[in-house]
Amino acid sequence: MADRIVVAIDGMGGDNAPEMIVEGLDIVCRQNTDVHFLLYGDEARLTPILANYPAARASCEVCHTPDAVAGDAKPTSALRSGKSTSMRLAIDAVADGKASAIVSAGNTGALMAMATIVLKTLPGIDRPAIAGSLPTQRGEAVMLDLGANIECDAENLVQFAVMGEAFARNELGLAEPVVGILNVGVEVLKGNEAVKGASAILQKSNLPIKFYGFVEGDDICKGTVDVIVTDGFSGNIALKTAEGTARMFAHYLRQSLMGSLMGRIGALIARGAIGKFRSQFDPRRYNGAMLIGLNGICVKSHGGTDGIGFAHAVDVAINLVRRNLNEVIKQDLERLMNERRVLQSVSG
Amino acid sequence: MADRIVVAIDGMGGDNAPEMIVEGLDIVCRQNTDVHFLLYGDEARLTPILANYPAARASCEVCHTPDAVAGDAKPTSALRSGKSTSMRLAIDAVADGKASAIVSAGNTGALMAMATIVLKTLPGIDRPAIAGSLPTQRGEAVMLDLGANIECDAENLVQFAVMGEAFARNELGLAEPVVGILNVGVEVLKGNEAVKGASAILQKSNLPIKFYGFVEGDDICKGTVDVIVTDGFSGNIALKTAEGTARMFAHYLRQSLMGSLMGRIGALIARGAIGKFRSQFDPRRYNGAMLIGLNGICVKSHGGTDGIGFAHAVDVAINLVRRNLNEVIKQDLERLMNERRVLQSVSG
Repeated sequence: MADRIVVAIDGMGGDNAPEMIVEGLDIVCRQNTDVHFLLYGDEARLTPILANYPAARASCEVCHTPDAVAGDAKPTSALRSGKSTSMRLAIDAVADGKASAIVSAGNTGALMAMATIVLKTLPGIDRPAIAGSLPTQRGEAVMLDLGANIECDAENLVQFAVMGEAFARNELGLAEPVVGILNVGVEVLKGNEAVKGASAILQKSNLPIKFYGFVEGDDICKGTVDVIVTDGFSGNIALKTAEGTARMFAHYLRQSLMGSLMGRIGALIARGAIGKFRSQFDPRRYNGAMLIGLNGICVKSHGGTDGIGFAHAVDVAINLVRRNLNEVIKQDLERLMNERRVLQSVSG
Repeated sequence: MADRIVVAIDGMGGDNAPEMIVEGLDIVCRQNTDVHFLLYGDEARLTPILANYPAARASCEVCHTPDAVAGDAKPTSALRSGKSTSMRLAIDAVADGKASAIVSAGNTGALMAMATIVLKTLPGIDRPAIAGSLPTQRGEAVMLDLGANIECDAENLVQFAVMGEAFARNELGLAEPVVGILNVGVEVLKGNEAVKGASAILQKSNLPIKFYGFVEGDDICKGTVDVIVTDGFSGNIALKTAEGTARMFAHYLRQSLMGSLMGRIGALIARGAIGKFRSQFDPRRYNGAMLIGLNGICVKSHGGTDGIGFAHAVDVAINLVRRNLNEVIKQDLERLMNERRVLQSVSG
């Protein structure tokens, strides 16, 4: 059992918790016999659910707490008065070395605040970011920050680039992910000071990062790059705009097909192809964003997902533990900092 | 001929100019017998094309200039050395009172720079913005700024809200457009200082603007509001992300349907419904963004459009002239400023 992976789970976070949590863990442990869960939550609610999922029950240790962070709780109040919540105790398990990762489908702001305070940032990282993957015309891409940092400077964006590149290599399995900075044009002079400064640093750097330069909004889904670096304001807006556009597209497609007899017949005949198409955009396939830049793997699941989606988020965490992502990030950052120190001493 | 509308046209701007320009004008003048065009460009190129479009020829006065703004020209160099270009002379025609509007499919940065210098901003407007319409699940919405102003403060956003509301009333024909500010969450405390400040001003104002509050990226296509107010950085990224997502969606739909025999048969049977669906997202239907906030109607067409798309951009300009949009904006702004003066004198 030396290589057993222990993952702490916030059993009470998410719209359909704790049922969908247990359902998700059941899916995960059927495919990962070396994974053990510390499941934080209300024992009285968890035990009868676990009784229906023997595989999950065998892999879970229930750690009882009746408290949970409310979905609408302010990060500050969660920090102050949430010390015995399932979310907080699951984070503590990582800080205490009892688990290698924590997964929660609860309140994002509270999770970010508590995880940052408890786990602390990696050396060289000023602020953690939210990194997630999304579908593109060429496969998948990683985007960060998805909403943790409203305003970012050039240094923050460079740190996001280093972390995002490591994430894409380890989570998407890409050998040499290409990194781009999201901007309103591709010319060097475009954009605000943060993107121009970050681009200049990455252009000059000798890090083994394939830096593409600036990309625009339509490059995200085109798959022009594998890692899209941006501040949390633009990143959150871009991600949600893409989600909203996909939903609108699906809405009008359904409406057009169902609006005529020939449309309905055609859709019936092509239902296999349409089903395949739909599954490509199934949000559960992309569920599981990482709070990246912390001393510990912390993954946020969408609050409204189901067991299949939650299982995917847990898989992301397990994979990042196996790949030892944080060690990779630490080494890359150290290399970047040494290199810049040398550059500065030469130029100074 | 008292009510004849004169529109100045940059005959040389755009990838397929001047052919697509003349083709577009031909479409427009068949439906608008009271419109006359001042067509700026190279007479030697324009005359033979006009010979093929008798309706356009009858509505156009060719104003010869051999010069044109290059697609990749810097705004500053266009300002300095572009005084005899088709774009600049067309803008001058509006400043000189010879035309009521200018339409160009050329270089956006150059158009914004020259139009701002030549036409000047409306009283009460610090910076012009780019406003355009886009499809939503409920019809159409207006979004601004789409890329003119990388950084905006609360005052800028309030001005955008006033202008966007007037644009939606007049261009989309909505009686009481609902206005929202794009943000990373809907709670009052979310976001940067600019969006929080603008929201506070609009909440307090007694202007007859229906202010919804904050909206998120997925609200754009959901049609939650009719006017989406944002800075040019986020607005440009949101618009292009939506375009890219729609293209990816179409790509995968085509691929799924064409990838199997049943898919191909189904698509053939449903081709009427699929065609109707495609036409809803035809970018030509949404072509024509307004450089809003200037003393004069200035409309930017997409550079890569065709005659049908360019005709739509010209239609937008004509409609805004008929509706006297700038007078509406001026009155709304004056009202807002008076009201705030009163508020300040009361609170001070």
